[in-house]
Amino acid sequence: MLARDVAEEYPVVRGDDGALEAAEMIAARRLPGVVVVDAAGRPVTVLPGPEVLRFLVPPYVQEDASLARVFDERTADRCAARLRDRRVKELLPPEDERRELPEVDGDATVIECAAVMARLRSPLLVVSDDDHITGVITASRLLALLLPGVD
Amino acid sequence: MLARDVAEEYPVVRGDDGALEAAEMIAARRLPGVVVVDAAGRPVTVLPGPEVLRFLVPPYVQEDASLARVFDERTADRCAARLRDRRVKELLPPEDERRELPEVDGDATVIECAAVMARLRSPLLVVSDDDHITGVITASRLLALLLPGVD
Repeated sequence: MLARDVAEEYPVVRGDDGALEAAEMIAARRLPGVVVVDAAGRPVTVLPGPEVLRFLVPPYVQEDASLARVFDERTADRCAARLRDRRVKELLPPEDERRELPEVDGDATVIECAAVMARLRSPLLVVSDDDHITGVITASRLLALLLPGVD
Repeated sequence: MLARDVAEEYPVVRGDDGALEAAEMIAARRLPGVVVVDAAGRPVTVLPGPEVLRFLVPPYVQEDASLARVFDERTADRCAARLRDRRVKELLPPEDERRELPEVDGDATVIECAAVMARLRSPLLVVSDDDHITGVITASRLLALLLPGVD
């Protein structure tokens, strides 16, 4: 059983795509995040849901969550507006602070996938063939494959 | 809209529960992890799927994933066996290395939840009332609540 056989389809976004659309994709499909690819379709990094939240919530509220108590529902609308004019690439950490892309070749074994995921403590693994994304594997899917009697 | 109104039911495990059962729960229900509670039902920490994988994969394979290429399917069975005699608490990092529990009161607002989640970069937030877990909120669920037209 190889990585490319168990990879699942996963939505990808490009750096120039709208940040609001990426956020809506995560929200509507209940995903842990989206995979960001470059113009040639090569996976660059993973944009997790909590990173998007950082751009919805004003910085002074992140510092002191009790300030959020004074926010009303209208303010939530203004939070969404904070994403409207941004691009996905503006939500990513600077290149030198980005986490190593959790990635394996399509011909990686299931144990190899588990080893990479365990080392990087990533909930998501990108499977690539010839520098193009084939799909992703989640930690829970890998556990299901490794534990007899679950899948 | 308060945290307790939007919290979703979530499986919890105790430190003395079997590690294999916790892993099977994550696998079967495709969860990012499980919430660990103490004997009194108070949430202690989150056990994410990738942490469980660390105990399935022998350490020398985590160091050098290419070694996994020599593993066959029978070896995968032996990996599962590595969990059989362990308890959940043996899978947790030592107390001083554990991440801060991402937790809010049941009466936290949605923006407050987003602020805590953004600060801790956690995909999961535990909602508690009177020291007992009410449920959890995922990052994608929060995004759905904050973005108009998604939920």
